[in-house]
Amino acid sequence: MKIGIVGLGLIGGSLGLELRSHSHEVLGVSRQERTCELAVARGAVDDAGTDLKFLADTDAIFLCTPLAQLQAIVLQLVSHISTKTVLTDVGSVKTSVVREVSPLWVNFVGGHPMAGTAQSGIEAAQHGLFARNPYVLTPVEATPLEAIALVESIIKPLQVRIYRCSPEDHDRAVAWISHLPVMISASLVSACLHESDANVLKLAQALASSGFRDTSRVGGGNPELGGMMARYNKLELLRSLGGYREQLDRIIGTIEAEDWESIEAMLRQTQAGRSQFTD
Amino acid sequence: MKIGIVGLGLIGGSLGLELRSHSHEVLGVSRQERTCELAVARGAVDDAGTDLKFLADTDAIFLCTPLAQLQAIVLQLVSHISTKTVLTDVGSVKTSVVREVSPLWVNFVGGHPMAGTAQSGIEAAQHGLFARNPYVLTPVEATPLEAIALVESIIKPLQVRIYRCSPEDHDRAVAWISHLPVMISASLVSACLHESDANVLKLAQALASSGFRDTSRVGGGNPELGGMMARYNKLELLRSLGGYREQLDRIIGTIEAEDWESIEAMLRQTQAGRSQFTD
Repeated sequence: MKIGIVGLGLIGGSLGLELRSHSHEVLGVSRQERTCELAVARGAVDDAGTDLKFLADTDAIFLCTPLAQLQAIVLQLVSHISTKTVLTDVGSVKTSVVREVSPLWVNFVGGHPMAGTAQSGIEAAQHGLFARNPYVLTPVEATPLEAIALVESIIKPLQVRIYRCSPEDHDRAVAWISHLPVMISASLVSACLHESDANVLKLAQALASSGFRDTSRVGGGNPELGGMMARYNKLELLRSLGGYREQLDRIIGTIEAEDWESIEAMLRQTQAGRSQFTD
Repeated sequence: MKIGIVGLGLIGGSLGLELRSHSHEVLGVSRQERTCELAVARGAVDDAGTDLKFLADTDAIFLCTPLAQLQAIVLQLVSHISTKTVLTDVGSVKTSVVREVSPLWVNFVGGHPMAGTAQSGIEAAQHGLFARNPYVLTPVEATPLEAIALVESIIKPLQVRIYRCSPEDHDRAVAWISHLPVMISASLVSACLHESDANVLKLAQALASSGFRDTSRVGGGNPELGGMMARYNKLELLRSLGGYREQLDRIIGTIEAEDWESIEAMLRQTQAGRSQFTD
């Protein structure tokens, strides 16, 4: 198959490496000439260019740019490609993307490969990034079944775990397990930094170990990515933050009431409940 | 030196292994005959018994029992030991311990070796548990300098990083970096489990990956230990929870106001701030 990739960063580049190793012809588009050269040199694409016209003749196109650029790119792209070309994206939020792109292109399937590293850019592209990780597709009622089948046939050989759900369910689920953790983890660091006693702050910094390190990790991640989550998944993130604050207030109230049995009972529930997410 | 250990669990047993390897004679006391036998068999103590009288002739005694038993043990112990014997404990909260024990024994130095594993009990005791980790001592004004010096001389060869501070500063610092993370991490699991849409909950469980795993880890830990933190460090934990909730509310308000620049700015601050705790 002839497959296009728009946006040759970590995800686009890694997709290219995989797709080429499964005998597809892969054409890439990046705004940066230098990125195009690097992508070819790294073997992430067979050829690359800076103009979307370059993808005129492809069967499927993976849109791997930041969420903010997606709609504008599709608007340009549609004048160059055949109506049979299937578009799919890799954005980490789906409701807003599907709402924006679906009216512009019938053969569009929202997608979200859940993979990443601390690095970004074409230099960080790697084989095996997607294997054993979830790859969520979020077709809507109007999405042609053939378009879904085509995307699935392309991604299945990457050994991903494919899930299908509505854009809304996707956004609600990732709010809980991905976007909410970033905000509560950032709040932890922020709260600690507000300690007004300089000696205590210094001591806390010296004594922090694995518990603090793990709980604060995602709150210390890429600020642009965190900002995007909040922007594009605002409603579901606020909903999860509301539910979270209820639980936090319940714990605070229980400690204030010195109801130690209830605290232990709750911690037994979270100990058991956590294993349903991490096993 | 002749050193006693009361409570032969993970910490007491691991201390025994280290102290014996540094040529001390180590005597252990446990309520369980079976634990005494295991401790001797594992080489954690030279000899062990179930009666506190057994430690009559020691130069220093490490109290390694749960916080709840500490005061009662000291009350019994004082009738058997010489006034020169130095007592020290290993509890993870210090203000309440020091307040309870200091009036009973002048030669008492509060201590907190910050080390642990997911396991507990004498079976989990191991060499090297304390090396490179902080070991906090919390003497008060009335603590004899010789008592502090004696404890430091015993623990220094364990290659620990020794810190001295007031019991209050200790409890405030560990509230931030150890006890607060447990409660906010538990609140995350608890909030997710309250998702009322069964499909979304199932999807969230399927999609959860390293971000969720790390942020929820300490909230899924030992419930008894979490309960003890809340019980014995109640005031400082509530204070840190209050500061945390302020930051959380600030994030919620900023997202509601769609002030994306402030969200990114805050995440840049936490990214930079976190490195002061984890480097």
